[in-house]
Amino acid sequence: MSNRDEAIRLHREWAGKISTEPKMKLATREDLAIAYTPGVAEPCKDIAADEALAYDYTLKGNTIAVVSDGSAVLGLGNIGAAAAMPVMEGKAVLFKEFGGVNAFPICLDTQDADEIVETVKRLAPTFGGINLEDISAPRCFEIEERLKAELDIPVFHDDQHGTAIVVLCGIINALRIIGKRVEDCRIVVNGSGAAGIAIAKLLLLYGFKHVVLCDSKGIISSRSERLNDVKRAMLEVTNLDDLSGSLADALVGADIFIGVSAPGAITPDMIATMAADPVIFGLANPVPEIYPADAKAAGARIAATGRSDFPNQINNVIAFPGIFKGALEAHAPAITDDMKLAAAEALADLVSDEELNEDFIMPDPFDPRAAQVVARAVRECL
Amino acid sequence: MSNRDEAIRLHREWAGKISTEPKMKLATREDLAIAYTPGVAEPCKDIAADEALAYDYTLKGNTIAVVSDGSAVLGLGNIGAAAAMPVMEGKAVLFKEFGGVNAFPICLDTQDADEIVETVKRLAPTFGGINLEDISAPRCFEIEERLKAELDIPVFHDDQHGTAIVVLCGIINALRIIGKRVEDCRIVVNGSGAAGIAIAKLLLLYGFKHVVLCDSKGIISSRSERLNDVKRAMLEVTNLDDLSGSLADALVGADIFIGVSAPGAITPDMIATMAADPVIFGLANPVPEIYPADAKAAGARIAATGRSDFPNQINNVIAFPGIFKGALEAHAPAITDDMKLAAAEALADLVSDEELNEDFIMPDPFDPRAAQVVARAVRECL
Repeated sequence: MSNRDEAIRLHREWAGKISTEPKMKLATREDLAIAYTPGVAEPCKDIAADEALAYDYTLKGNTIAVVSDGSAVLGLGNIGAAAAMPVMEGKAVLFKEFGGVNAFPICLDTQDADEIVETVKRLAPTFGGINLEDISAPRCFEIEERLKAELDIPVFHDDQHGTAIVVLCGIINALRIIGKRVEDCRIVVNGSGAAGIAIAKLLLLYGFKHVVLCDSKGIISSRSERLNDVKRAMLEVTNLDDLSGSLADALVGADIFIGVSAPGAITPDMIATMAADPVIFGLANPVPEIYPADAKAAGARIAATGRSDFPNQINNVIAFPGIFKGALEAHAPAITDDMKLAAAEALADLVSDEELNEDFIMPDPFDPRAAQVVARAVRECL
Repeated sequence: MSNRDEAIRLHREWAGKISTEPKMKLATREDLAIAYTPGVAEPCKDIAADEALAYDYTLKGNTIAVVSDGSAVLGLGNIGAAAAMPVMEGKAVLFKEFGGVNAFPICLDTQDADEIVETVKRLAPTFGGINLEDISAPRCFEIEERLKAELDIPVFHDDQHGTAIVVLCGIINALRIIGKRVEDCRIVVNGSGAAGIAIAKLLLLYGFKHVVLCDSKGIISSRSERLNDVKRAMLEVTNLDDLSGSLADALVGADIFIGVSAPGAITPDMIATMAADPVIFGLANPVPEIYPADAKAAGARIAATGRSDFPNQINNVIAFPGIFKGALEAHAPAITDDMKLAAAEALADLVSDEELNEDFIMPDPFDPRAAQVVARAVRECL
């Protein structure tokens, strides 16, 4: 049976990857009288008097929503709310399996930023956190910023920040091998959608000084035309030498390439122009910007992809379950920059000096310690 | 330990009455490659091409939302969204335990009818049905009507229609005992909020001709002042003799009293003025309009309440799980009047001629057949 047939067969058999399960039995009138009327009135009255008790008496304390508008789903693009559900259900499963966090998928029948913000705000009493997923750029930036400003529960766009945390983990460990100093490294981020922008921002927060951002037209510089507000704002902190030109131009002498772009975006010729010991993260999925063997043949010291069948998989699953696990445990009102940095460092530390090598810079996606150390890092930021 | 302390202790221990549980293991890379990327793209693509497949490949086919704005919660009134959560979670548990229907509680941070309609419509791609709960009258009528008109999934306000179905079941069985004909019976419904209006409507649909609706000011008649639109519309079909006056006036010669009002609303003196073999449903909870012993002492042949510690409990739990079980199994786009009538008759039939007596007109709330026969009745209406 082909993988396609097997995926369809199993999705049909599961008929939804998440079920809702009662935590108690309602087998007797006495059970009913406590969990439902009249007993249930007691926690209701207490919460009405002190809303913080919702964290103790309801699922708000351990449950998040995985919210999408279906506008940028995997590599499939804008497939809409109904078709995005299998992905959001899968994400909800990962939250539970890896982080012990209850998660419910919500796909919204609107792609209007105002309406998404408004709707999520109205849902907020139910949930302890909101994981935004697969919402296209640049709307995703505005939606997340507004929700963060207006809600007192954590709001986290995993395509941005989960990816950025895991990439930073990989870069931290790559530097342990190549021995270059953070402040000296020149990094080129190719792709300036949700992930590229967030990666660049987190790298800068971590202490990198020289980050150049590219989009499909080349280096984002003061001479770029028709930049959206987000890209324009990035000019304040990236490309400090005001380079212009193509990606190939950007890569001359660069130390690190991070691609969140498209298959074939970087060529062996370009890698040959980079500084010594180049680090190549080709994260387009399923076909990366360059395959690791080709990158190595062109001189790359370290290569990473998003795929599980090559070494150094950049997989968000090592980050997002622990992020919300920690945030919920601490009743954090937001996911802060400090939390993201601490999470990346904690994940990098999971790879011991003995394990670390060119083909082992990332914790295994199934490493059960990942959610634990990330959650602890998040809690300790409060 | 008091009931209050026990309810608080257990709600704290449960920390939410519903968890989200994966239906499959994600223990290996192979598992992940089917349930998540890249395999998950296959059902996504199929749903994008044919949205009806969402019922087969996602939780939409077996999951509903229990939606409230916290405006009319139990007898507690307008306690708001956060404080309503324990009730909605309890309701979700009942859906699963009694009907096998997955249900997720959603409490909305708005009490504006337009905003509630708008929000529920945006949530609709996720769910196979919407159970509205504890939304105050008269907003609940408009909200439900608009959602029914604009959505292609079933929308059901349980406080209205669940209650009406279960009351009709009880009335059908009461008539089996007292032997009066439907078309001859005079029924007084006291209370014209969500439940009272829906009860009156369903009784009329069933074939009762003489229904008089009262509110806190007495009989709703052409002379009543400041009626809301819903009460005014009921004048077209109720109180055909255009009686006016108090509840006591309405009850003179009446056969059946149905109270969804307040403790003490009906007195022994009033019962004494009713026709032979009066039937008294006092459904205010936890303190009924009149206690069964007092009703019997005043001449009532049959008395029912909402309480589990007296005979003839009118409990919605015998109806709503089966309603959505049947609707989801049949992919019903709506809950129709025919379905409600069929559900009431199927429930009434669960009480055999041998079992039926003045103190046993209702199926037991824990009768496992209830959800089955209601679901079948719903399916057979399609």
